Amino acid sequence: MPLPRRRPQPGVLITFEGIDGCGKSTAADRAFAWLRERGDMVRLVREPGTTPTAEAIRDLVLLSKNSIDAVAELFLYEAARADLMASQITPALQRGEIVLADRFYDSTTAYQGYGRKLDLAMVNKLNRFATGGYQPDLTLLFDLPLDIAMERRGKEPDRLEKEPRAFFERVRKGFQAIARREPRRIVVIDATASADTVFNQVKRTIDAAFRRWKRT
Amino acid sequence: MPLPRRRPQPGVLITFEGIDGCGKSTAADRAFAWLRERGDMVRLVREPGTTPTAEAIRDLVLLSKNSIDAVAELFLYEAARADLMASQITPALQRGEIVLADRFYDSTTAYQGYGRKLDLAMVNKLNRFATGGYQPDLTLLFDLPLDIAMERRGKEPDRLEKEPRAFFERVRKGFQAIARREPRRIVVIDATASADTVFNQVKRTIDAAFRRWKRT
Repeated sequence: MPLPRRRPQPGVLITFEGIDGCGKSTAADRAFAWLRERGDMVRLVREPGTTPTAEAIRDLVLLSKNSIDAVAELFLYEAARADLMASQITPALQRGEIVLADRFYDSTTAYQGYGRKLDLAMVNKLNRFATGGYQPDLTLLFDLPLDIAMERRGKEPDRLEKEPRAFFERVRKGFQAIARREPRRIVVIDATASADTVFNQVKRTIDAAFRRWKRT
Repeated sequence: MPLPRRRPQPGVLITFEGIDGCGKSTAADRAFAWLRERGDMVRLVREPGTTPTAEAIRDLVLLSKNSIDAVAELFLYEAARADLMASQITPALQRGEIVLADRFYDSTTAYQGYGRKLDLAMVNKLNRFATGGYQPDLTLLFDLPLDIAMERRGKEPDRLEKEPRAFFERVRKGFQAIARREPRRIVVIDATASADTVFNQVKRTIDAAFRRWKRT
């Protein structure tokens, strides 16, 4: 299984990615409980959000009834990310904590780059500005067909979830393209399986990554 | 007097810049009334704001009680700009209107670049992404010493206006540096004079620019 190399930071950033309804939030919650129980210093964040400023941006971008230009939307996600990065992720990593992120910049590449068809070079550059160039140590991509994801969503759709089917097809293919480009960082998880089977794969993947990081 | 060249757009974008309390908003209001009375198709916008999404961002960035990371703040201003650009400025310029903007991207360069000391190359790049590379046809920079500006402000200070004096000194010097780099686009107005004297110079500057644009 291809795994990323350990970064110079003492902490570890593990991101959970995929289209809405893929099960990443459930898996991130369970991974958080599992790592905390075994005594690790672990923190769970969600994007966009977590900090007061980023949660206000989340409300604006997901719940607004007003139209939002696609480039403006991209900037809003990056604003939320920069605030979360500066006030929580970077300090936690410097203290040596494990940070689990329910979405990170791959979502911006997939949704705003592939989904909205914004220039990928611009999206990549903004992702780097927002994170200061920091990359996740490990990314779990929960992949499953759109039909199953839409069935699983259940709840009332937010502003983004109201997009047409073709948008989400582009987003899914975008995630797959990102995973092909960075096989050392990104592990694709078959999210069609049961929640328990998926979570067992999550645990195995994280355990394997920790063993590898210890060796290097 | 150095004046910018006419851009290929049928419309004209004139921006009003300077530190808080410099009198640019009053001058922009008067210029709007003056141009409308003489029969021009003219529109006045303010930054950040004007569109519903940008006004929500304005509230977040100026009225928030929560801390906001400097890079996040930069992204928020660019988000407001991109939304205003896409939904109002670009369509108005394409219809041949005169657009007056109370602040535009020079404010971001001065406040976030010079004031907050963010990397100027990053700020310039984000300004270009937010505007699609469009530059104002004419920029009026209202320059005056900080003491007079602070005395003139009067109202309750917003989140930005609470910054220390040294911040505003950097912002003023930043505006002056921008004006030195782009003497064809930016006309510096001595804002220590009376409102009427200042406005007469605004009218003369705009009239001269229009005469020049007609010839080219």
